Amino acid sequence: MLTLYHWEPNAASARVLIALKEKGLEFQSRYVDVLAFEQHAPAFLQLNPSGETPVLVHGGEAFNESSFICEYLDEAFPDHPLMPTAPLDRWAVRAWQKYVDDYLAAAASDLAWTALGEPALKARRWNSVEDAVARIPAKERRDQWQAAIAGLGEAALDKARERIRLTLAKIEADLEGQGWLAPGGFSLADIAVYPYVNYLPRIAPELVDAAAAPRTMAWLARMSERPAVRAAAAMSRTGDAYGVAAPGPEHIRWG
Amino acid sequence: MLTLYHWEPNAASARVLIALKEKGLEFQSRYVDVLAFEQHAPAFLQLNPSGETPVLVHGGEAFNESSFICEYLDEAFPDHPLMPTAPLDRWAVRAWQKYVDDYLAAAASDLAWTALGEPALKARRWNSVEDAVARIPAKERRDQWQAAIAGLGEAALDKARERIRLTLAKIEADLEGQGWLAPGGFSLADIAVYPYVNYLPRIAPELVDAAAAPRTMAWLARMSERPAVRAAAAMSRTGDAYGVAAPGPEHIRWG
Repeated sequence: MLTLYHWEPNAASARVLIALKEKGLEFQSRYVDVLAFEQHAPAFLQLNPSGETPVLVHGGEAFNESSFICEYLDEAFPDHPLMPTAPLDRWAVRAWQKYVDDYLAAAASDLAWTALGEPALKARRWNSVEDAVARIPAKERRDQWQAAIAGLGEAALDKARERIRLTLAKIEADLEGQGWLAPGGFSLADIAVYPYVNYLPRIAPELVDAAAAPRTMAWLARMSERPAVRAAAAMSRTGDAYGVAAPGPEHIRWG
Repeated sequence: MLTLYHWEPNAASARVLIALKEKGLEFQSRYVDVLAFEQHAPAFLQLNPSGETPVLVHGGEAFNESSFICEYLDEAFPDHPLMPTAPLDRWAVRAWQKYVDDYLAAAASDLAWTALGEPALKARRWNSVEDAVARIPAKERRDQWQAAIAGLGEAALDKARERIRLTLAKIEADLEGQGWLAPGGFSLADIAVYPYVNYLPRIAPELVDAAAAPRTMAWLARMSERPAVRAAAAMSRTGDAYGVAAPGPEHIRWG
């Protein structure tokens, strides 16, 4: 039996939810409300000391890191493969996943946090937020959250916009040809990138529109129509699937 | 035919060199002198626009990222496998590789840079270093090199030492049992971690010694005796294999 601890179908949680749906796997959903800081509650930290969602539990073992959860699912359940078979194509999928983890996720989530996450958090229960952040166990993560709730500042947002510009050029180049990000067809590369790019036409239309990024816009439309992507979106509690990105985890590697 | 562009058998270059030797693969070695900034020369940037070593060329395709080069080699050449077979064990190897990429490499290379790299660079041809750094094409990487040649400062070194302390606790825990880092036996996890920990008893004996880290010390000794590890070390031109780590690439994600 598979159990997934996840937040909204956004960011890293979205990647695993989409993969589970694409593979047609049954799983138990455990919703972790990141804006209520449930990921730093003792019960969750026992499961994952790093306080990050998502976490998959299978056969009594709990494990994290969405890129590797997705590869695990693909190896443990070979039906409906989400990895290509040629070694070089598999390299390309992993390189895209790493690009998302190390580079795109932080930039996209900075823009999304400023446009959507910070207002959502402030609308919720601002008085308790600073107290909750002060209780985060890991200092590096606490510092990142404190910076995020203080507001990221124009320099960080400019850096994020520059990364998005470079990312869009890369996506446009890789989509040329068969229309998926990695050679070998639809894969975990598309699943990894989609949750971070889907909201950009809404919050950064000057960077992502049909004129600047025609292939990206067509790919986003094709992705959004996939039954698995729709099914994952339907699990949203806020009604804003693929919309709001969390600050903490994504910012840890954002220098 | 395999061709590897690599620096000294240190850090990420060491990981791929050891993997090639463990698998018994013939390859053409192309030495890139990182302290002479050859990785930012136009010819190398054409191969890898990010200006990072190592780069593998196989079948006319060039690709980077040592974790994924190693997985590629293991998939393209199945003899002498360096990945376990069980999906959960494979997850553990990937998680260790990511831990090195995202967390350990920067901390270990900060300590090594301060102890070994900065003096090595200054001894070489300091007058031209600032000019060479100013010509690095990518601004994020240029900023990191400029910070590194200016000296990292005590706050960064304290942060690095704290990460090393946490890493050693993790290594000690994972070595309990069969004596390799991931379940399933010797693997790419051991290869990924070794080049960053091998020099720590020398440059940070207060953090890594037989009293504080007995399993780590025994594992380092076992690793050092492996024929592949010796063969990779023998490729050193400076005579200081597994000793000096480069600043640039490793520092990109070091917030």
